[in-house]
Amino acid sequence: MSDSMAQGAEAATDGDINFRSRRWVRPEDLNANGTLFGGSLLRWIDEEAAIYAILQLGNARAVTKYMSEIDFVSSARQGDLIELGIRATAFGRTSLTMRAEVRNMITRDRILTIDRIVFVSLDAEGRPLAHGYTEITYNRDRIPLG
Amino acid sequence: MSDSMAQGAEAATDGDINFRSRRWVRPEDLNANGTLFGGSLLRWIDEEAAIYAILQLGNARAVTKYMSEIDFVSSARQGDLIELGIRATAFGRTSLTMRAEVRNMITRDRILTIDRIVFVSLDAEGRPLAHGYTEITYNRDRIPLG
Amino acid sequence: MSDSMAQGAEAATDGDINFRSRRWVRPEDLNANGTLFGGSLLRWIDEEAAIYAILQLGNARAVTKYMSEIDFVSSARQGDLIELGIRATAFGRTSLTMRAEVRNMITRDRILTIDRIVFVSLDAEGRPLAHGYTEITYNRDRIPLG
Amino acid sequence: MSDSMAQGAEAATDGDINFRSRRWVRPEDLNANGTLFGGSLLRWIDEEAAIYAILQLGNARAVTKYMSEIDFVSSARQGDLIELGIRATAFGRTSLTMRAEVRNMITRDRILTIDRIVFVSLDAEGRPLAHGYTEITYNRDRIPLG
Amino acid sequence: MSDSMAQGAEAATDGDINFRSRRWVRPEDLNANGTLFGGSLLRWIDEEAAIYAILQLGNARAVTKYMSEIDFVSSARQGDLIELGIRATAFGRTSLTMRAEVRNMITRDRILTIDRIVFVSLDAEGRPLAHGYTEITYNRDRIPLG
Amino acid sequence: MSDSMAQGAEAATDGDINFRSRRWVRPEDLNANGTLFGGSLLRWIDEEAAIYAILQLGNARAVTKYMSEIDFVSSARQGDLIELGIRATAFGRTSLTMRAEVRNMITRDRILTIDRIVFVSLDAEGRPLAHGYTEITYNRDRIPLG
Repeated sequence: MSDSMAQGAEAATDGDINFRSRRWVRPEDLNANGTLFGGSLLRWIDEEAAIYAILQLGNARAVTKYMSEIDFVSSARQGDLIELGIRATAFGRTSLTMRAEVRNMITRDRILTIDRIVFVSLDAEGRPLAHGYTEITYNRDRIPLG
Repeated sequence: MSDSMAQGAEAATDGDINFRSRRWVRPEDLNANGTLFGGSLLRWIDEEAAIYAILQLGNARAVTKYMSEIDFVSSARQGDLIELGIRATAFGRTSLTMRAEVRNMITRDRILTIDRIVFVSLDAEGRPLAHGYTEITYNRDRIPLG
Repeated sequence: MSDSMAQGAEAATDGDINFRSRRWVRPEDLNANGTLFGGSLLRWIDEEAAIYAILQLGNARAVTKYMSEIDFVSSARQGDLIELGIRATAFGRTSLTMRAEVRNMITRDRILTIDRIVFVSLDAEGRPLAHGYTEITYNRDRIPLG
Repeated sequence: MSDSMAQGAEAATDGDINFRSRRWVRPEDLNANGTLFGGSLLRWIDEEAAIYAILQLGNARAVTKYMSEIDFVSSARQGDLIELGIRATAFGRTSLTMRAEVRNMITRDRILTIDRIVFVSLDAEGRPLAHGYTEITYNRDRIPLG
Repeated sequence: MSDSMAQGAEAATDGDINFRSRRWVRPEDLNANGTLFGGSLLRWIDEEAAIYAILQLGNARAVTKYMSEIDFVSSARQGDLIELGIRATAFGRTSLTMRAEVRNMITRDRILTIDRIVFVSLDAEGRPLAHGYTEITYNRDRIPLG
Repeated sequence: MSDSMAQGAEAATDGDINFRSRRWVRPEDLNANGTLFGGSLLRWIDEEAAIYAILQLGNARAVTKYMSEIDFVSSARQGDLIELGIRATAFGRTSLTMRAEVRNMITRDRILTIDRIVFVSLDAEGRPLAHGYTEITYNRDRIPLG
């Protein structure tokens, strides 16, 4: 029995994605139609990708550079639980490419997939900074120092 | 001299985009690096596109269906003014395709462009609904009834 | 056909006001009665006036100094679209006076009018700063430098 | 020594106003200049007036109808403490008129005064409802039933 | 007739607590079940305690150090009015202990009680700072200077 | 190498807690002193516990009933990454008891521990509902139906 299950839900292995973070759709996340506001959803994805990138690149100055196309397959309603999964797919010299997938846990429907989200590692002056990594870390060895 | 200028800024004609809406970057819109949080930006774009789509499709039940790739060319800082421009580029049977562009008015830099944002018109049961329109309206003739 | 129409709605010319910015009333903007929260509305107006003032005064340090009386004629409900219009009406030595009007696009009702919103241009120490302008600009010639 | 002092600050009696509610200015309440965002301030006032009106009119359906002119005399910065004071000044047949005053506790400066904020009592259909009160209650005898 | 009544409701004396601050439960404060979100409630309590501690300790650098157990006895719904009461119960050398109680004014039910909330006074380097006070002030004599 | 590591950080096994969710401290999460606002932190914990409880109890109507004492050992600053860990420790007839721990990933310091957070499963009328479970599930077999 794996640790990855500890939040009470089997990690859905959809190809190479492992779902990680969950959100509970509250009234403040609804659009005027009563379904999940796309803006809340995109905000959650961007925040999760930022955290993931910082932990992989070992640099708190990691910024969103690119997102590939987004197909909104289904939506969610108040009270639904949303799963967000992020996984690194490629390391560039100064960048990291990730794949994101979002699911509705209640309806079991996929909400969307983003094949490539690219973050870039920056130095203190905001210029791209080589990070020196070529593979995903599964340890805590790249957490930036405070 | 056109009315479209009334907010004190010439409409930037960048190809076929007319900038419309402005935002003032406040502390709550910053990421932990002190630059514009991608999540705030995506939320603003989604809201503007929703409003535009409702006014073109004559239906308040218009939902985000698709966004083409997004290249984050530059960013913004606290106090910067952001322009968001949206324009319809194609009418499908039940959908509307728009182009979005975002600029930093202070630095004069483009922040991003999204070539295609597709919204779909839905009926009360959430099924795609033919809207019957084939061209942009420049009038108030499609505003949904309350 | 004017560019000012590009968001799909004819600019309502109510005397000298040109409507510019729209908002979509979401659950987070409702008061406990389910109608538009006055606090959300006043926040939107203050932000629009600030942006307008910055673009007219050429100074990012423009602060709210005065609002004339506000008559809340009608309200709005979830899903309604709101139009905010701002227009300069007088230039003082260090100040700018604007007129604001807010309408409910769905019900076609006026929500409120504010005859005078005064912003003052400040220097780096927070003292009133003469701005040298006497007329509305319809160009991008006063955008503050970053 | 009165109970009214229990939050650690003597009630400032500025004419007929008794300060009641305090706010702590956090980063999310700042405008892009780093001073208190007028929109946050107006939102706080509207919420306090709504609560006060509900308790005086004995009706949860009390809505903002009118605000007299607002002079922004001074501002506040991050970490400042703000006092909001509300007091009924007149009872109409279906309305309540209040006076509001806001102070910066740290700088001791008045921030603004609003001489008249009028709320109207509504019935379930949204029509003005006679409330039958002519004086301020200092008891809990008008709290609406759930 | 006491000043403590000025917000239109008799101060509920529940043992030694004097209720002070009220909140109106809006849609953004609801959880996905439509009842008061525990997170909103805890945020309100923490903010009220911080303000109270600053005014008693005469130091804006007062931080949450401890909360005793919390029993959520009842909840609240949209439109309910909530009362928060805070009162100092003990002064340590560098700390202040408070008691908090929250009630639903509409249902007359107690929502929760927190017997001990401890804040600590800090110096500019973040170390505990002796504050020199041993009793509650009922005056404005400890408000920190700006 | 376990899937549980996929967000780029080894699950910290601090006794029986497995850290799950991360947050990035943004300006809107700061108190007026520039450190993590206790209210934001408590909101995050309550939301995580709610999601965990729903997935374990198989019931979307799970509400916060009790939190044991909270010792705020350290804090966090803008840009810090926060880990929240939740784990079921006991199943009652209608309740679930969890343990929560929060860490600052950047400073490696523990922020706080809550030994017992109790949620109760409710029926449609808001009465405690027996859930029938006695052990943690590591599968997706209890996700409530929409």
